[in-house]
Amino acid sequence: MGTVTRETTLDSRQEILRTAARLFQEQGYDATSMNDVAAALKLSKGGLYHHFQSKDEILFDLMNHAMDITQERVVNSVRGIADPEERLRTLIRRHIGVVLSERDREITVMLHENHPLRPSLRKQINARKKEYVHFVEALITEVQRARSSKSSVTPRAGAFALLGMINWIYQWYRPGGPLQEEDLARQYAEIFFAGAVQ
Amino acid sequence: MGTVTRETTLDSRQEILRTAARLFQEQGYDATSMNDVAAALKLSKGGLYHHFQSKDEILFDLMNHAMDITQERVVNSVRGIADPEERLRTLIRRHIGVVLSERDREITVMLHENHPLRPSLRKQINARKKEYVHFVEALITEVQRARSSKSSVTPRAGAFALLGMINWIYQWYRPGGPLQEEDLARQYAEIFFAGAVQ
Repeated sequence: MGTVTRETTLDSRQEILRTAARLFQEQGYDATSMNDVAAALKLSKGGLYHHFQSKDEILFDLMNHAMDITQERVVNSVRGIADPEERLRTLIRRHIGVVLSERDREITVMLHENHPLRPSLRKQINARKKEYVHFVEALITEVQRARSSKSSVTPRAGAFALLGMINWIYQWYRPGGPLQEEDLARQYAEIFFAGAVQ
Repeated sequence: MGTVTRETTLDSRQEILRTAARLFQEQGYDATSMNDVAAALKLSKGGLYHHFQSKDEILFDLMNHAMDITQERVVNSVRGIADPEERLRTLIRRHIGVVLSERDREITVMLHENHPLRPSLRKQINARKKEYVHFVEALITEVQRARSSKSSVTPRAGAFALLGMINWIYQWYRPGGPLQEEDLARQYAEIFFAGAVQ
């Protein structure tokens, strides 16, 4: 029974996060109140506060959840690939997949918006973002070595360029437009491989 | 006298825009009221409303001003360069310069934030953004032709990748950090030239 209760609680938190993410996206973070979130979920205000003490806490959990998604669907899914070049190609494809995921877009986009978060919480999110940049940077170093690359692009600049290309997609991408996931992944990989690890 | 009055008015609007941009950056767009803007400028509320009818109008003018900066400092400054490759290299350098400009960062960053703007105004800003993407896209086409490029990267995907790399810089850049303007411009140009127009 203990397990069932915990599962239910987890599901409720997830549902609150998804609903809050949708409201933040539609009407803006600041303009959305805890009351709005409770109303959209048909929860009493007390019911919502049982899960989250403040909007700050929802935002922090949303950002953490976005980093969990990146960790699981990108980092963990490529760790087992022995060949560094194949690992980097897969990372590019998987990260683009996360950015384009209809289900997760409202959550992952929160990572890039400039909303005021308590400094102690902001620090924790920034640390997770940095960890991902370092993972990509180390992978680029490995690929450059494996290919005896003559590129003068440093793994650090390469990582920022690659993550910029990919994370920026949410700014212009339209589902059903001429540039779709597979084509985009192929072209972005071509740019990065020829551009930074040749 | 007519000229002096107009100049003064223009200066006031610019000053209001800069102050508003700073407040939006510090405390968030939604959390900033017209009263806050007036107070920061030591203006009466009537004095502020003389220049701007609403916060919506300030946001729209800010975004337009950010596009004016791009137009003047990037597009107009490269149009006269005859060699397409040199034109693209200069565009990369100039655009990075705009993103890193301490004076303009608070203004240009507003282009990328998701704030609710009336659809008719949003449309006008999006049209200007698209115009810039098309300018970059046409230039990439020209460079690929001039170099008889064998790249299978389309000018459209190339333009989005390049603008993503550059516009993303504001997310991670720290003044005084190890990656500074000149070094960044050189490495990003190397990635793009080897990656998309080789």
